[in-house]
Amino acid sequence: MTTKIDINAAARLLLEKDNIIILCHKNPDGDTLGSAAALCHALTAMGKKCAVACHNRIPSKYDYLEIPVYDNQFDVEYVVSVDVAGVNLLGDNLMEYAHKVDLCIDHHGSNGNYANYLCLYADYPAAAQVMYELLVAMNADITPHIADCLYTGLITDTGCFKYSSTTPLTHEIGARLMELGAQHTMLVERFFMSKSRKAVQLEKFMLNNLEYYFDDRCALLALTREVMMEIQPDPTDLDGLSSMPRNFEGVDISILIRPLKEEGNYKLSIRTGETVDACALASALGGGGHIRAAGCEVVGSIETVKKAILKEVENALCQ
Amino acid sequence: MTTKIDINAAARLLLEKDNIIILCHKNPDGDTLGSAAALCHALTAMGKKCAVACHNRIPSKYDYLEIPVYDNQFDVEYVVSVDVAGVNLLGDNLMEYAHKVDLCIDHHGSNGNYANYLCLYADYPAAAQVMYELLVAMNADITPHIADCLYTGLITDTGCFKYSSTTPLTHEIGARLMELGAQHTMLVERFFMSKSRKAVQLEKFMLNNLEYYFDDRCALLALTREVMMEIQPDPTDLDGLSSMPRNFEGVDISILIRPLKEEGNYKLSIRTGETVDACALASALGGGGHIRAAGCEVVGSIETVKKAILKEVENALCQ
Repeated sequence: MTTKIDINAAARLLLEKDNIIILCHKNPDGDTLGSAAALCHALTAMGKKCAVACHNRIPSKYDYLEIPVYDNQFDVEYVVSVDVAGVNLLGDNLMEYAHKVDLCIDHHGSNGNYANYLCLYADYPAAAQVMYELLVAMNADITPHIADCLYTGLITDTGCFKYSSTTPLTHEIGARLMELGAQHTMLVERFFMSKSRKAVQLEKFMLNNLEYYFDDRCALLALTREVMMEIQPDPTDLDGLSSMPRNFEGVDISILIRPLKEEGNYKLSIRTGETVDACALASALGGGGHIRAAGCEVVGSIETVKKAILKEVENALCQ
Repeated sequence: MTTKIDINAAARLLLEKDNIIILCHKNPDGDTLGSAAALCHALTAMGKKCAVACHNRIPSKYDYLEIPVYDNQFDVEYVVSVDVAGVNLLGDNLMEYAHKVDLCIDHHGSNGNYANYLCLYADYPAAAQVMYELLVAMNADITPHIADCLYTGLITDTGCFKYSSTTPLTHEIGARLMELGAQHTMLVERFFMSKSRKAVQLEKFMLNNLEYYFDDRCALLALTREVMMEIQPDPTDLDGLSSMPRNFEGVDISILIRPLKEEGNYKLSIRTGETVDACALASALGGGGHIRAAGCEVVGSIETVKKAILKEVENALCQ
């Protein structure tokens, strides 16, 4: 049974606890990592024992967050998840916590209500926006470093204030975090103005292999195991690849299919424009997410996976 | 003799005047047009006669600004320029006003002091940021439409809050304008999330044909006459193509060579990172520009043009 609570109640809960582990979602992005790092640094500064855990090794791109990774340095008494919409997103390495999450801090409307307490703000574009208000409510000292962590979440989940989820409050918090010392230029360069060689190779592959369906309203890219073997991209090299074709003239739906480790398993990332609900498409195949950005995992051959998602797309476009 | 004044003084001046023409810079962008439109709509709502003038026809992309273009509908009594750093940027069609500008509202540190009064805020990333504060100081009614005009200037001159010129105040004003009704999603989609089919074709050609030199520190793209004939891009389709490779890992210099109308004439666009002076490279071949973005025109075959610029690049990298 999940109890929904607001930011002030979540702040009171956290202030009472100690020996806290903070869980990120698997295939971590700037929002789950930045928000978790901010909370961890703030709680640690309050004298609590606290560390972060993630299914995956944290990509080196995020080294500057200086995340203290959990390594049995204390006995866990309280489990918090950040930006994790469902238990399946914790990943195998964190499965031991799946039914032990005390508090979930999230911004996904599709949250699976798996935690005892849920602090959910579905109209916030980033978990970092919830986290900023939570730290304020906790009367935490938001140092320049914590401001960097939060600004990371804010810019990575809003495409640097581009996505339609951006609100006046998002700008307000952006302003506050810059005033508190967030390094706007360094962070924007890192996430939006530098492209790794492998990301460039993937973009080239995308432009040469993008498939168009339904009067070109749907663009689909299938990354085969072969091309993944050839390019060997880091997970961060794939950032943005799924949403790129959405910006092409006439494209309402962009789908990226990529292989998961287990043979026959594929991850789909779905990005949509104003006319199509990405979450509904993903949900039809057992996934979830937001209205413009969602995802799911499907078992099958790349051809059956394609067929399955294109059938859902066809239904959505016919409505 | 130019007198520098602050926003409050500029507001008092404008409130006193009537029959006002507002001048934009040539090859107009979202900031000069959005700021001029906002001022024009605000002054008109105050019962004043007011219109906007520009050397060029206003691109249809900006139709939603609903700019009232000056067409002798009143006798001009007061001349205001917006976002125009020097008289040469007015363009031939506005040369009659070159020495008659009463008030210049600008954010370029390089402003040529050509107006009687200069309201210059060089640390503001956009003229629209000056204009917002000016309208507030004039106690103007910032309607949702005026908010759209100002938000247009703000996002186009900051790369949607990406450039290092973005400050906390920029975010604050972004928040205010959204609250006042600026259509964030429509405007961001229009300027940052739509890529024409031809622009996509050019990007694909770029990724498949980019040449790397000097340990990959220099990326060069030569657009042949053949590919230009095949794709037939509009000038706006080429926007950004020259700077794209500059964001690739390890690339300090990005050069785009494209054919001009006359056989054997080529235009070079040069974009550089922090270590190389683009203007020096362009100057060596008879061109000019800014330290990070410059250009020149060269006569020859595409091979001799390449050779000439690569020689200059080699010299620059050896220094």
